[in-house]
Amino acid sequence: MRKICVVVGSRANYSSSKSVMRAVQKHPDLELQVIAAASALLDRYGAVVNVLENDGFEISARVNMTIEGETPVTMAKSTGLGLLEFPTILDQLQPDVVLTIGDRFETMATAIASAYMNIPLAHTMGGEVTGTIDESVRHAITKLAHLHFPASKDAADRIIKMGESPDTVHLVGCPRIDVVSEIVKNDNNDADQSWLEQEGVGGHIDFSQPFLLVAQYPVTTEYGQGEQQVNETLKALKEIDMQTLMLWPNADAGSEDISRGMRKFREHYDHEYIRFYKNFPVETFVRLLNRCACMIGNSSAPIREGAFLGLPSVNIGSRQAGRERGSNIIDVDYNATQIADAIKKQLDHGRYPSEPIYGDGHAGPKIADIMATFDFQIQKQITF
Amino acid sequence: MRKICVVVGSRANYSSSKSVMRAVQKHPDLELQVIAAASALLDRYGAVVNVLENDGFEISARVNMTIEGETPVTMAKSTGLGLLEFPTILDQLQPDVVLTIGDRFETMATAIASAYMNIPLAHTMGGEVTGTIDESVRHAITKLAHLHFPASKDAADRIIKMGESPDTVHLVGCPRIDVVSEIVKNDNNDADQSWLEQEGVGGHIDFSQPFLLVAQYPVTTEYGQGEQQVNETLKALKEIDMQTLMLWPNADAGSEDISRGMRKFREHYDHEYIRFYKNFPVETFVRLLNRCACMIGNSSAPIREGAFLGLPSVNIGSRQAGRERGSNIIDVDYNATQIADAIKKQLDHGRYPSEPIYGDGHAGPKIADIMATFDFQIQKQITF
Amino acid sequence: MRKICVVVGSRANYSSSKSVMRAVQKHPDLELQVIAAASALLDRYGAVVNVLENDGFEISARVNMTIEGETPVTMAKSTGLGLLEFPTILDQLQPDVVLTIGDRFETMATAIASAYMNIPLAHTMGGEVTGTIDESVRHAITKLAHLHFPASKDAADRIIKMGESPDTVHLVGCPRIDVVSEIVKNDNNDADQSWLEQEGVGGHIDFSQPFLLVAQYPVTTEYGQGEQQVNETLKALKEIDMQTLMLWPNADAGSEDISRGMRKFREHYDHEYIRFYKNFPVETFVRLLNRCACMIGNSSAPIREGAFLGLPSVNIGSRQAGRERGSNIIDVDYNATQIADAIKKQLDHGRYPSEPIYGDGHAGPKIADIMATFDFQIQKQITF
Amino acid sequence: MRKICVVVGSRANYSSSKSVMRAVQKHPDLELQVIAAASALLDRYGAVVNVLENDGFEISARVNMTIEGETPVTMAKSTGLGLLEFPTILDQLQPDVVLTIGDRFETMATAIASAYMNIPLAHTMGGEVTGTIDESVRHAITKLAHLHFPASKDAADRIIKMGESPDTVHLVGCPRIDVVSEIVKNDNNDADQSWLEQEGVGGHIDFSQPFLLVAQYPVTTEYGQGEQQVNETLKALKEIDMQTLMLWPNADAGSEDISRGMRKFREHYDHEYIRFYKNFPVETFVRLLNRCACMIGNSSAPIREGAFLGLPSVNIGSRQAGRERGSNIIDVDYNATQIADAIKKQLDHGRYPSEPIYGDGHAGPKIADIMATFDFQIQKQITF
Repeated sequence: MRKICVVVGSRANYSSSKSVMRAVQKHPDLELQVIAAASALLDRYGAVVNVLENDGFEISARVNMTIEGETPVTMAKSTGLGLLEFPTILDQLQPDVVLTIGDRFETMATAIASAYMNIPLAHTMGGEVTGTIDESVRHAITKLAHLHFPASKDAADRIIKMGESPDTVHLVGCPRIDVVSEIVKNDNNDADQSWLEQEGVGGHIDFSQPFLLVAQYPVTTEYGQGEQQVNETLKALKEIDMQTLMLWPNADAGSEDISRGMRKFREHYDHEYIRFYKNFPVETFVRLLNRCACMIGNSSAPIREGAFLGLPSVNIGSRQAGRERGSNIIDVDYNATQIADAIKKQLDHGRYPSEPIYGDGHAGPKIADIMATFDFQIQKQITF
Repeated sequence: MRKICVVVGSRANYSSSKSVMRAVQKHPDLELQVIAAASALLDRYGAVVNVLENDGFEISARVNMTIEGETPVTMAKSTGLGLLEFPTILDQLQPDVVLTIGDRFETMATAIASAYMNIPLAHTMGGEVTGTIDESVRHAITKLAHLHFPASKDAADRIIKMGESPDTVHLVGCPRIDVVSEIVKNDNNDADQSWLEQEGVGGHIDFSQPFLLVAQYPVTTEYGQGEQQVNETLKALKEIDMQTLMLWPNADAGSEDISRGMRKFREHYDHEYIRFYKNFPVETFVRLLNRCACMIGNSSAPIREGAFLGLPSVNIGSRQAGRERGSNIIDVDYNATQIADAIKKQLDHGRYPSEPIYGDGHAGPKIADIMATFDFQIQKQITF
Repeated sequence: MRKICVVVGSRANYSSSKSVMRAVQKHPDLELQVIAAASALLDRYGAVVNVLENDGFEISARVNMTIEGETPVTMAKSTGLGLLEFPTILDQLQPDVVLTIGDRFETMATAIASAYMNIPLAHTMGGEVTGTIDESVRHAITKLAHLHFPASKDAADRIIKMGESPDTVHLVGCPRIDVVSEIVKNDNNDADQSWLEQEGVGGHIDFSQPFLLVAQYPVTTEYGQGEQQVNETLKALKEIDMQTLMLWPNADAGSEDISRGMRKFREHYDHEYIRFYKNFPVETFVRLLNRCACMIGNSSAPIREGAFLGLPSVNIGSRQAGRERGSNIIDVDYNATQIADAIKKQLDHGRYPSEPIYGDGHAGPKIADIMATFDFQIQKQITF
Repeated sequence: MRKICVVVGSRANYSSSKSVMRAVQKHPDLELQVIAAASALLDRYGAVVNVLENDGFEISARVNMTIEGETPVTMAKSTGLGLLEFPTILDQLQPDVVLTIGDRFETMATAIASAYMNIPLAHTMGGEVTGTIDESVRHAITKLAHLHFPASKDAADRIIKMGESPDTVHLVGCPRIDVVSEIVKNDNNDADQSWLEQEGVGGHIDFSQPFLLVAQYPVTTEYGQGEQQVNETLKALKEIDMQTLMLWPNADAGSEDISRGMRKFREHYDHEYIRFYKNFPVETFVRLLNRCACMIGNSSAPIREGAFLGLPSVNIGSRQAGRERGSNIIDVDYNATQIADAIKKQLDHGRYPSEPIYGDGHAGPKIADIMATFDFQIQKQITF
């Protein structure tokens, strides 16, 4: 009976691990432990920990580790705070495997804690290439992990090239596609309209009519430029003047800049066509992806889930640089004209055919099965 | 005028960076900042910070970050504590480049702090292959660093294979060899005998007669076995019964086990042939390497400095697994008989010819020059 | 030349120390050091650190120590984080005296750091009686402090009764009254109207017409009840229906509850008579106190500055329980009807005569003079 | 069923709480939780946590919080580290009452964590007067505690004078006397001799012959003077030249100074009459107190347990200044001649009659009973 400890540090983490957690729960040889950490606990980011509990996941421990300020200094220090907390918690939970997701600061803290404590570390979403500090952090975590679950072929190849033993690398697809696949199969839910009306602030949205979806996040290595960057997007949206759902940014260094830009825009312009949200329930978000006319910003969703869904999308700036992408993406710079032109092109084109670059919808059970039986070598050694 | 911040976290770090610090001090375009951290501050490990000050280095900041206990839990937590401290300090010092050495927990904390704070990170001793958790930590640090100064050809090749851009990898040799080369050139110092007599505890040592040198450290991934491991060595030494200098272990998880084994040995056996030391002044240590009949244990010194000096050595167990080595090394298991046999063989053989695998004695000025002019790309991207 | 280190942890702290800092700057025998910490650094609370810099105070160090979450757990942990940071900073600054203000978690962290480091600790605003955990924290800080500057006679007596040596207790009045006194003397500033229009969100305010001022904060020991408490106030304001300026709460545990109540109110009701502010510049705030028709909530301002200014006020609930107050205060419960009735009574009454309970406007220079020459006994001893 | 969480931070803490923990374990309405923290976990200080487990106490959590260095800076930071840890642990354990002992840094961290988290805090050994920073820390903890168990009448009176509500102050005696009383009743144990021979280093001790007992600790407010202070004691012992058991100091700032003095003494002088110990098992220590000819140093044991046992003692320096004491104590300065003279006087005098100043041996059950039923007022208010 192996104890699998999943660390959920954000709402994005939850979508990326939900199907794995379900599969671990159901697996006869596995026991699930869940640590809710970082922005997963924070009201400001929608406290996804409550969603987990509503979905029937028992929280083994809560790790408050986000130091306010959202500067490079506080991001580094938050990692340090997590690294003081996780060993205490892991020492109490005594897991057999720790599963960590992606490339955020709580992921780094989890990885180092596990590595020093000689607990086998499994990692999803490794091997991908992006911009920002996440690029370095993701590869550093790969060098600490004992078992890799990359989401795409390119990513798997890259992990092996970096010197990880091929038998530790399992190409299973992204668990987030599992969630997407299931929701899309049953998209006859009409509850979203009332949720969208009750929550958020701003204009009125009619979910049955065409709408845009916007999510723009700070780029760590372009710290201080967030306000100006989001302004270009907001100008383009003003020109398109179509009903739009827009997300507030997450807890990275620089999100305050983006938020400020958005707040000022709200205060100074008529904005009846935009409605602002802190976050969406996972299911609602997927249905929005499935139905929206075009997604705009620098989220990874249009690239990953979007490939599966054939979602017309406009990707802005450097945040997703280097990530594998399907034909559904048009890349543009931080430039209102370019952004507006690309949106128009996508609205003309409409839906694309599905491309399963990031998985086919069955990652969760595959990951659980492998974790149940994998013969972990705690002493890593580079292959060359 | 670039500000170069060197983080010295242990007495070994100091030998590995002294010639670089000297070269930075003398360089017209560079300003030196020194952070003394972790065991470099601790009496128990010889407080090498005092040696730095005596050698004319001004300490910009001191970072107490070692949480007592020397378990895997406290090693992980100490990393976290360092990661809370370094951002505060780096924010005050505002360096242009941070130089970090090797693969210890303070190195990891330094690397993450610099990476998140967008400060270019230079790293020495990357790309090598060893056992213990250091193996993973070293490669993870490579993935965070912007400029690499590997000590050997193999190490340089490995860094490039891991996906680091070749123009960021500079094969300069190990700065510790610089120190060795200089000291050996002028080895007419007779002060060592009186130092060796005044310090340490145990038997009397006559430095002009043949002697053994022993340094055995805990292996993180073999936590809990240190006492038994050092016992085999102590048994072998008892059999050889030749005058011996032996070091107490450093501050890694498990060092308490080794120390306990050594203390019990001292208390229960006649040990007039062994004298125990907390540490040696860098210069004394190098002269000991240069003069000793055979070095025994799992230190990297006989492999690195030893290759340059042709030092007959017995390497025990897994700690140095995978590291490039010259003909001066005999590898053995944790086994008193094997250890004793290998010591006898080396005593029969005597000195080996010099092999410059880890440098030719001019690394410091080369590193300083490169740091003065290198065009850092703060946004890293893997090469494949 | 004594180095006086003032720790400013919030916007309220700044008003309470500005005149002291000015006096220290001008004093021939003193040198000023300023640490900006906790919510003083945070955009969400108006980043008062920028105001300090604009006012000509150089910031010696910044201490990010606020862990997000605003729960009792994070408040305790934020204290701990501060207590990891302050020793590092104080060790770098080497002050002769640390001056700390009031009873917040950053004050506690400052006090313990100074006490353990044998740095003389001066404390303002001790000896007062209030509700919430601040009550315990304030008296605990008194027991750690070496020099006391209480604001009122009652407070001074209480400190001595608690066993502090009378020669360490100096009744000087509250430095915040210094700021008030000076601003009120020159209240011909008309810039406030445009500031009030540009900042904040909500209805339009005409500063030349009668208006209400509202500030309601969470009560730590009534954690979880903030939303319901502020609702009563908001209902009363709805009934009065007069133009109103209202502040968002500060960073204590529970402020998220208050904020949620305020956000929901804004979203569900017509609220054209209220305008919401994150904070006011110190000077603007004082002029608002000086001109407003009635202040409502549980801030200490109407009790302290209000006594000096004769400000008609309605104090709600337990947060200010036990604090000395003048005739300008009507106390009520968390009850919309009581609140509305009291506001009406105060509007009928108008201004009260000035009562100098909390100082006469000359505290800053007195405090600086005493700190310059006081003969500190680092070893405290209770007097009975 | 109230959950009582006892925090044991050192070997001294354990003696001071063992009878309470036993009584809580046996109480029908109470459930015991034990947190082992700080030096209670460290090999260097005898890892008393193992003794607890051998005695049948289950450890609910372990808190590593001791930052190496033993300077004022690290003592303050260790408090901070504890204050990051305890909230996490208390949030997991959800106790109804936290019981904390004395005045050390882990006690302070425990007190603040409990206070901010609104958990009722019970405190033993409050209200006493001593030297060092413990004096301030103890009284600060009293101001945070909700229930007081002072050991002596003077202490109880002092707590009430400080403004604590008399119904929260319960004079029960010191639980350490419970342990003493029980052990002394059955002092026919002859196992001590073999234990004393096997452990420790130095000369041979014959437990059946008269011997001295020495324990000298650093004085925080006299930081840096420890080596010189202990030298005076060692000189006096050399003059007396009688068989002596001497303890290494604990983990406070400055203990390294004392240890250095002791190590140098051992290395430079013949010292066949002294044997050095890291610690004693609680029972052995009490029997040593009961049988030794004279105790010397600045421990509180001769004052507290010594009063009950009538133990002839020489108290050196300021560490115990102001503490109530019986006729069995002679106070002297850090002065070899004074110390030696006082020892001779006590050897001439022999045993004193028992004085129950610090308890009669029944504190544990009284404390458990009160904690089971006390009506805690979480909002404290000073009584004047």
